[in-house]
Amino acid sequence: MLEKVNSPADLKALSVADLQVLADDIRAVLIKKVNETGGHMGPNLGFLEATIALHTVFDSPRDKIVFDVSHQCYTHKILTGRKEYFLDPAKYEDISGFTNPHESEHDFFQVGHTSTGASLAYGLAKARDLKGEKYNVIAVVGDGSLTGGEALEALDNAAVLDSNMIVVVNDNGMSIAENHGGLYGNLKTLRDTDGKAQNNFFKTLGFDYVFVKDGNDLPALLAAFKSVKDSMRPVIVHLVTEKGHGLKQAVENKESFHWIMPHTLDAAQPAEMPANYTSDTVDYLLEKVKTDDKLIAVTAGTPGATGFSPDFRAKMGKHYLDVGICEPHAVAAISGMAKNGAHPVWCVLSSFIQRTYDQLSQDLALNSNPATILVFWGGISSMDATHMGSFDIPLISNIPNLVYLAPTTKAEYLKMLDWSIEQNEHPVVIRVPFASYEAGEPDTTDYSVLNKYQTVEAGDTVALIGAGDFFGLARQVKALLKKDGIDATLINPKFLTGLDAELLENLKKNHRLVATLENGVLDGGFGEKIARFYGTDAMKTLCFGANKEFTDRVPMDELMKRFHLTPEQIAADIKAAL
Amino acid sequence: MLEKVNSPADLKALSVADLQVLADDIRAVLIKKVNETGGHMGPNLGFLEATIALHTVFDSPRDKIVFDVSHQCYTHKILTGRKEYFLDPAKYEDISGFTNPHESEHDFFQVGHTSTGASLAYGLAKARDLKGEKYNVIAVVGDGSLTGGEALEALDNAAVLDSNMIVVVNDNGMSIAENHGGLYGNLKTLRDTDGKAQNNFFKTLGFDYVFVKDGNDLPALLAAFKSVKDSMRPVIVHLVTEKGHGLKQAVENKESFHWIMPHTLDAAQPAEMPANYTSDTVDYLLEKVKTDDKLIAVTAGTPGATGFSPDFRAKMGKHYLDVGICEPHAVAAISGMAKNGAHPVWCVLSSFIQRTYDQLSQDLALNSNPATILVFWGGISSMDATHMGSFDIPLISNIPNLVYLAPTTKAEYLKMLDWSIEQNEHPVVIRVPFASYEAGEPDTTDYSVLNKYQTVEAGDTVALIGAGDFFGLARQVKALLKKDGIDATLINPKFLTGLDAELLENLKKNHRLVATLENGVLDGGFGEKIARFYGTDAMKTLCFGANKEFTDRVPMDELMKRFHLTPEQIAADIKAAL
Repeated sequence: MLEKVNSPADLKALSVADLQVLADDIRAVLIKKVNETGGHMGPNLGFLEATIALHTVFDSPRDKIVFDVSHQCYTHKILTGRKEYFLDPAKYEDISGFTNPHESEHDFFQVGHTSTGASLAYGLAKARDLKGEKYNVIAVVGDGSLTGGEALEALDNAAVLDSNMIVVVNDNGMSIAENHGGLYGNLKTLRDTDGKAQNNFFKTLGFDYVFVKDGNDLPALLAAFKSVKDSMRPVIVHLVTEKGHGLKQAVENKESFHWIMPHTLDAAQPAEMPANYTSDTVDYLLEKVKTDDKLIAVTAGTPGATGFSPDFRAKMGKHYLDVGICEPHAVAAISGMAKNGAHPVWCVLSSFIQRTYDQLSQDLALNSNPATILVFWGGISSMDATHMGSFDIPLISNIPNLVYLAPTTKAEYLKMLDWSIEQNEHPVVIRVPFASYEAGEPDTTDYSVLNKYQTVEAGDTVALIGAGDFFGLARQVKALLKKDGIDATLINPKFLTGLDAELLENLKKNHRLVATLENGVLDGGFGEKIARFYGTDAMKTLCFGANKEFTDRVPMDELMKRFHLTPEQIAADIKAAL
Repeated sequence: MLEKVNSPADLKALSVADLQVLADDIRAVLIKKVNETGGHMGPNLGFLEATIALHTVFDSPRDKIVFDVSHQCYTHKILTGRKEYFLDPAKYEDISGFTNPHESEHDFFQVGHTSTGASLAYGLAKARDLKGEKYNVIAVVGDGSLTGGEALEALDNAAVLDSNMIVVVNDNGMSIAENHGGLYGNLKTLRDTDGKAQNNFFKTLGFDYVFVKDGNDLPALLAAFKSVKDSMRPVIVHLVTEKGHGLKQAVENKESFHWIMPHTLDAAQPAEMPANYTSDTVDYLLEKVKTDDKLIAVTAGTPGATGFSPDFRAKMGKHYLDVGICEPHAVAAISGMAKNGAHPVWCVLSSFIQRTYDQLSQDLALNSNPATILVFWGGISSMDATHMGSFDIPLISNIPNLVYLAPTTKAEYLKMLDWSIEQNEHPVVIRVPFASYEAGEPDTTDYSVLNKYQTVEAGDTVALIGAGDFFGLARQVKALLKKDGIDATLINPKFLTGLDAELLENLKKNHRLVATLENGVLDGGFGEKIARFYGTDAMKTLCFGANKEFTDRVPMDELMKRFHLTPEQIAADIKAAL
């Protein structure tokens, strides 16, 4: 049946039986493709029938469907002219895992962060009304995304739009992991009462409300969408779907099948992971909590990404907290916890700490409460543009009062982490290395002496300041320069939030050039502060890091070359500048 | 009665009649003091009785009261040992308008942005439970703050805390201006039904719920707070209060009496304001909308601060939108509007755009939708630390795809604004000048040619790059240097988001030093990019701007001296470096 369908228009002529065959076809394709390439298995299987029904009832792209976070957009892509990327293994990697307007007129936004879809859709609807146009605007939002403040703000506004706005709530009873928050009690009550409970979160905001008990049942979905099409009142269509529907392993292991590595279905046993910063963190916290009853490990809805497995959560007990996907609240909450004597450690991905600038500044830094934040996945990567980790240094390091640390080895990392938990003066952020893993020498640094850089190897002429996980790169550059007779000084700055003026002054005595290396965007970052410091001196400065640009699934080697970040390029640039 | 009260403990012995006399005393003091100094008149008068009742029933600081945004904390300050600052005119200016732990152990956080209180209080409660302690944690949140995502995230979490957490919702039916959003429909329903409506927003999240019909009635307040004291379930106490209670003018003019200028009650007529960038903006938008039916002026709950008066709103009609206090949604919504062909112009204060980093990056910049954002009050100021405008350049200018413009005159500003609205390529942010006002020469610049700086006066030896409203400062420095025989070049960069490499290269021919001047924090800002550019050249660079620090009500002249920003200091630094 999939052979016959090349666009949403082809769906209109199909019978419900044909659509069901189509769903089976697509399900087989998705399971095969996602198992080959990795990707969001559970959410896509769960929203498969609903997507077919949406494209059957509505008229995309005139009617505009906005997928929140777009973890669930694969079927949409298949139905809107992009099925070849799911059928042809040679083209598997040529398509984004998220909606992308560059791919299709049926995609309106490039998204990958949660809780934005209703807000973006609201904007489309508002412009439509301003222009006096008539069509449907549909936001598809998962229940897991509803804890995000941006989604709640959008619902509050959408409810009073006084025109067409359809919000499809894809309720599979799960976030990435289990759901947390009071709203989920209401969703459960609504599920348990077939949507008939008097007390209805969506109705309190003013929405009309339609309940679909089986959100994987095509006839029910078709009927529900037809009933709200062209509605001139904001309406919620609450679908109860099954995450991973139609794939036994995914249904039985909803959390681990939310996003899978390639060939997960093939492997008898998942390969044992070597030790890494994630496992080091988990091991440290489990050990620490034995003697620190004020410790509390916090996640904002992404426990798996930072190693907080179900086993870890169980062992931590009341010393573990998942606030749901709501990073702003997470920051304010850990500030409050630290103020009241607890030792919170919030683990978050670089890309998602972007959601908390104001909370970092106002709720945390201004109040100087001694909470700890661990930033994972910070640095240049080949990931999707929506998940880049290149911006956290400018984001965090220019806020007063925060201490942003950049360890280069496991030993340093754990020393910094332990210091941060034990001290009572500063909000501390630690950038967990991303590009490298090294055990390192025992670290006896007293981190309460702020902004003290470490000269690891003293030399002359050129000083290489390698921040965090680019320290190893600096070491490689030093080796290359050595071949040309330059005995470069190697410096580990450790602190991203301040300058070691004494050390930098001393470098002037027998150095002519200072090169900085940081794993992130140069603009607003660490190196520029060094360049400013030496502004009126004879000292030359060269800053190495990423360009200020969004990069989308560009291979790492290509990125490193583009940014002049191979050891050879860096050494050549330094020699040319001397 | 106020003479007898020096701490919350003194309230416990008072009769209700005595407390009522105390309320009258405090009301007279507040009206006199706030009229003298300016400040938040309406919110404080409205929450006066509730504050007395809170401190009578609860035992602060053991019980912990967190005031959201703390627009309503004056009575709290009077009751917790700080009445002299409200009674003695000589000490009026020695106290913050917001809660501040440096002032009192009864204040737990320094706050001034909305929607954070419940989240911070949740953190206190969570730490209390972790430590096995027993006391009450009370968050006081206004209805206007409930549209903010951080507040909604916090309520969602607080509702499932499974221990004591009391959220006092101070519902005066107003935000700073009128309320917007579906939630307010539910609050109205609850008011209309004496809290008995079946469909109850707070109950949907899982809160217990107590309704107080007259939130300015002491006996009712005392009874309500007593009924929830030591509750081991999260509970909402929904108070219906009157903003400005007890002051006729404030009750009748709730919006203009939210925050007043000094001597508002004395003046027969408000003084006519001279033309300024706010009035220019309003005039421009009212004229533009006559020919641009896609224009839409947007605010996120702060219309008055950017000149969107009731008269303006009425004239704009459907071309005006207040989304309520929810800046993240505002950014995503204008991105959606721009995507769908509207011309949104969002006006926001520098301090509050901090709430939107991720939305600027993901929802707007990554999608390159041509929305316009006008940033007001950006720059160094003597304001409270919670309202500083020094951080927007690092925040905004290091995000890819955004164009951040810094006009120096009215003519430039309106040319940039008009270009931004007419173009379809870029998300554009304009930093409305804050420190200066100048009409300027007619501007014929084509801003679609990005990152083109303007050499206003060509000279040699020293080049002064004065960004935005520090261009005037650069001109003053040039005059001083002239006295020493230095004919400095004067440059208006216009763009904060990119370098004019050609112009900067050309400066090398006959200049030895480039000085940058920007009205904001240096770290991560504009000047450091210039310093990096010249890193390997003989060109010296000096960056002038603010230090990376939170400053709290420090007089401007003191700040300018501290940051080496007087014309004389700058000229001296330049001469010393040459």
